[in-house]
Amino acid sequence: MENFEFYVPTRIVFGKKTEEKIGEILKKDGIKKVLFVYGRESIKKIGLYNRVVNSLKEAGIEFVEHSGVKSNPVLSHTKEGIKKAKENQVSAILAVGGGSAIDEGKTIAVGAKTEKDIWKFFKREEVIEDALPIYTILTLAATGSEMNGFAVITNEETKEKLNISSIYIFPRVSILNPELTYTVSSQYQAYASVDVIAHIIEYYFTCKVCPNLSNRISESLIKTVMETTETILKDPRNYNARAEFMWASTLALNGLTRTGVGGGLFPNHLIAHALGGIYDLPHGACLSIVIPAWMQWYKDENKPQFERFAKEIFGVSSAEEGIKALTDWFKKIGAPVSLKEVNISENEIPNIAENGYNIAKVQGIENIYSKEVIEEILKKAL
Amino acid sequence: MENFEFYVPTRIVFGKKTEEKIGEILKKDGIKKVLFVYGRESIKKIGLYNRVVNSLKEAGIEFVEHSGVKSNPVLSHTKEGIKKAKENQVSAILAVGGGSAIDEGKTIAVGAKTEKDIWKFFKREEVIEDALPIYTILTLAATGSEMNGFAVITNEETKEKLNISSIYIFPRVSILNPELTYTVSSQYQAYASVDVIAHIIEYYFTCKVCPNLSNRISESLIKTVMETTETILKDPRNYNARAEFMWASTLALNGLTRTGVGGGLFPNHLIAHALGGIYDLPHGACLSIVIPAWMQWYKDENKPQFERFAKEIFGVSSAEEGIKALTDWFKKIGAPVSLKEVNISENEIPNIAENGYNIAKVQGIENIYSKEVIEEILKKAL
Repeated sequence: MENFEFYVPTRIVFGKKTEEKIGEILKKDGIKKVLFVYGRESIKKIGLYNRVVNSLKEAGIEFVEHSGVKSNPVLSHTKEGIKKAKENQVSAILAVGGGSAIDEGKTIAVGAKTEKDIWKFFKREEVIEDALPIYTILTLAATGSEMNGFAVITNEETKEKLNISSIYIFPRVSILNPELTYTVSSQYQAYASVDVIAHIIEYYFTCKVCPNLSNRISESLIKTVMETTETILKDPRNYNARAEFMWASTLALNGLTRTGVGGGLFPNHLIAHALGGIYDLPHGACLSIVIPAWMQWYKDENKPQFERFAKEIFGVSSAEEGIKALTDWFKKIGAPVSLKEVNISENEIPNIAENGYNIAKVQGIENIYSKEVIEEILKKAL
Repeated sequence: MENFEFYVPTRIVFGKKTEEKIGEILKKDGIKKVLFVYGRESIKKIGLYNRVVNSLKEAGIEFVEHSGVKSNPVLSHTKEGIKKAKENQVSAILAVGGGSAIDEGKTIAVGAKTEKDIWKFFKREEVIEDALPIYTILTLAATGSEMNGFAVITNEETKEKLNISSIYIFPRVSILNPELTYTVSSQYQAYASVDVIAHIIEYYFTCKVCPNLSNRISESLIKTVMETTETILKDPRNYNARAEFMWASTLALNGLTRTGVGGGLFPNHLIAHALGGIYDLPHGACLSIVIPAWMQWYKDENKPQFERFAKEIFGVSSAEEGIKALTDWFKKIGAPVSLKEVNISENEIPNIAENGYNIAKVQGIENIYSKEVIEEILKKAL
């Protein structure tokens, strides 16, 4: 095992009706006024908006609304949120929604505490040194943002989709009620499942050393994601399946699966972000297109791990068969596995690869993920 | 899944030479003076004492020593530590050792912040409302105390072995260097392995609902513990085995395996503590004696889980065979599996059961673990 640090200071409040506790939780923490960050109508449709507002009012918590977060949250809207947070002198962020609302909320939390241009933190030209406390209520299990220190934002002007990473943006408390995910559609559930699997296999396949313990935990999570996804697609209101999927999704990217593996890159996300920055495609769809291609391209770099994956997850014996089985599973749940399915043709690849190369440069891995390499991988995804 | 809260605010610094960072870590946290809690000579023999002292001195951290912690830490020595912490106005506890040093350190951290009789917190007559910050350097992986909010102390006068549980006694930082466990003897490694397995199976078998995800994580940890124990017993300086064992041991009792299971008792520990309170036996030995007997007694209460355990861990098909396989494995690693092996005879059982019943009363589970029931279980351990 490689040396590591593990620190996950988010308190998870998990289960039925837990969203009703939000007011009381904020009050106990001495919070008086929050910026209430959310997307559009969906939290109103399921009655969540009212329950949150009632809980805040009962606890005497003031709030300023910042709605209209997009599903790939954008810089301009985030900047509006920062302005609002400053003008209204809120003492915390309350993000209600999926990874998008939470990521925008985290970014606003950073922006509210600095006079610097927020995009510089994404370009890694500035280091995060403070943020407002962040509270979340999750309505879509996928990104893991509710229990980690990452946030992804798209700069619409430059088409860059970049992330920040800091201990200061771990939510202080995240409320996870699986019932709030009952209305996630089959299509979005499929994308969410792909995203969670991606979070796990990024480290699983790019590990420098690959301890049995981390492997076993990763495989436990993947098996749970696959099993619960199949149940959810058949029976969307199955509480136990929604609950196990939700918790697996949180554990998939809170650092647990990464402990001791050393190294560990996020290449599938890199290329998926390159795609998602240009085309307004769901993140999970970008991933299901990229993953089989990347696996084909990478498999000989860590053959024992690909063979282990094939055997443990699908009961097949070769790396090739494992990749095929995962691709088939993506198809089965309704996720696209080729660029063709989303109407992207070969002549668009150089442009996507250029975008990917720019992300690789920000991450300092452009020596591995050059423009040519990304093109090569994307061609396998045609 | 049942509703749950999960909050583990301990920062883990894991790997080679990490103990050398202790001074710098304390300094960064603004700590000026610590009570340095440890056992006897063992940390001096391996050179750890000097490395810690040098690191503290380099960082300008003052320290007051409190050595002589026993392997089942006792109340009288803990009280001396509390007195020392108060007199010297230390601002934190630094516990260096195994679970005993950490548990005594945690208790001192509570005692230093109150004028109340410390034993009342163990009797659950008082509630913990504050504690000094706790830092640990682990030298024996077993109890999980380095990343949880529990501490166990023995009252020598009353023979009670009781625990406290509080969010305030999670260590702020725990340093885990697997190399520091190279000198743990085969015998103590075996006891440690039993203890870790016990932590996992307590919840695994007494779960109210038993989610596949929690089951898979528990099984991942058990498999890792068994595999690494066998390697360590053959090759005590195998870094990877020591490392995976150490991290599995920490994860086994930080709340992860318990998420969503609901209920969850600690009956094997209850009876083992009843034994350990009277006889000065290693905690792991008490557990390896109690577990097979308790499993026999309990198996029909949660048959699917016992069958699952048999299949997943040992590849056998019945609950009975699973219990036998675990008992055989305890024997194989050199842990006792009967009272006879530690020279305790049938006529001593009522006295142990009486002690166990008193612990059950403190825990509020005397309706399940009556004196008669504990006697019945202990008779199966003859």
